[in-house]
Amino acid sequence: MALTDSETTVAHLRERVLAFVRERDWEQFHAPKNLSMALSAEAAELMEHFLWSTPEESRAVAAEPARRAKIAEELADVVIYALGFANMTGLDVAACIEAKMAANALKYPVEKARGRSAKYTEL
Amino acid sequence: MALTDSETTVAHLRERVLAFVRERDWEQFHAPKNLSMALSAEAAELMEHFLWSTPEESRAVAAEPARRAKIAEELADVVIYALGFANMTGLDVAACIEAKMAANALKYPVEKARGRSAKYTEL
Amino acid sequence: MALTDSETTVAHLRERVLAFVRERDWEQFHAPKNLSMALSAEAAELMEHFLWSTPEESRAVAAEPARRAKIAEELADVVIYALGFANMTGLDVAACIEAKMAANALKYPVEKARGRSAKYTEL
Amino acid sequence: MALTDSETTVAHLRERVLAFVRERDWEQFHAPKNLSMALSAEAAELMEHFLWSTPEESRAVAAEPARRAKIAEELADVVIYALGFANMTGLDVAACIEAKMAANALKYPVEKARGRSAKYTEL
Repeated sequence: MALTDSETTVAHLRERVLAFVRERDWEQFHAPKNLSMALSAEAAELMEHFLWSTPEESRAVAAEPARRAKIAEELADVVIYALGFANMTGLDVAACIEAKMAANALKYPVEKARGRSAKYTEL
Repeated sequence: MALTDSETTVAHLRERVLAFVRERDWEQFHAPKNLSMALSAEAAELMEHFLWSTPEESRAVAAEPARRAKIAEELADVVIYALGFANMTGLDVAACIEAKMAANALKYPVEKARGRSAKYTEL
Repeated sequence: MALTDSETTVAHLRERVLAFVRERDWEQFHAPKNLSMALSAEAAELMEHFLWSTPEESRAVAAEPARRAKIAEELADVVIYALGFANMTGLDVAACIEAKMAANALKYPVEKARGRSAKYTEL
Repeated sequence: MALTDSETTVAHLRERVLAFVRERDWEQFHAPKNLSMALSAEAAELMEHFLWSTPEESRAVAAEPARRAKIAEELADVVIYALGFANMTGLDVAACIEAKMAANALKYPVEKARGRSAKYTEL
């Protein structure tokens, strides 16, 4: 109860997601193709909250209480499906992130990337 | 080094993502609107690996070594942007997931949802 | 009234979309960034109808009357935003399609691509 | 040759797309599920050009020649898959758009919607 990011491991969240899916006998539907679609659909729902605001305005949108509660749900859906995808494919999320961030650090060296939003191919 | 899901808290991953962004002075670009777009774009890249396979075939696609390495990168990108979004909006991912899963358990009671992929409104 | 694909030019549809936007003074919101987000969000809504079905089952899903009516709306939304994007950027859709299909014909020569779903880089 | 929006019917574009698919015996892969995924993935690629720009800046991004050529290709891909989806499901795009725009006109009456980006539920 009352999980928080500071005290919750990724593995603990994965186990919760897996238990939920198994209790409902949903592994049969959770092929990587289907989970990637569901993840993409949820990411789009998160994005829909910000369609017509400017980036600056979007900071206020995300802080408005009624909206914030819905945004929290969409973010949860995104991460739940990402963890479900990791469960079904056996990928370790923390290891994937560590490896990708090491690669990103090479593509975006601090001195070249600082304060710039250009893609690494254009730095 | 050598992070794993069993020993890594969500907060630890969030801090790594935040440090990466801050070192590059990228918080100015990381408005919720922009991060939700980047997350959605990465989710689409993950999905692209499975466009033409059937769900069943997609399990094998995700297991094929060369493909698996790329899929791992796309999954990492998705979670990195989700954590970045959480950092910028101050949402606690574990708390959001716990709340959403409690709501989902009410929408999808085990006895009604078992073995069925229908939306809760059609159960 | 009663438009049909056989008798309607792309330009006619574009004009209808443009008139709708102008009457509401919405051009100020219709920057390419925002329209590309809206288009992507609508494409995700179309996709949501097929999350858990197999590709084969999805043909029946799209034929079921209640579902079909909603799918028709989502498809309309996608094309409306694509035409709105063309209006705001001044791109000619038919010309873009003709050029892209010529490029695709080179990437996917009939004799190599027939009956295969592989990406051109893997043919 | 040299198609333009002013002189090209939607049906003509649909026939071109259908011929391309049939020559390659690709109808077997073009289930609605798969086409909706491909459409969504292409919409995301279009969106990727505008991730870090503001809406205002995105107008200039879309006008920059090198970028514009790529954007034209992504827009073409989106519409090609939308037309392919219409071909496989037998939906008439112009009729769908006419019906949806009539519904949108009721949801967004000119006097209430003018100059406002709010969703119809919040007008």
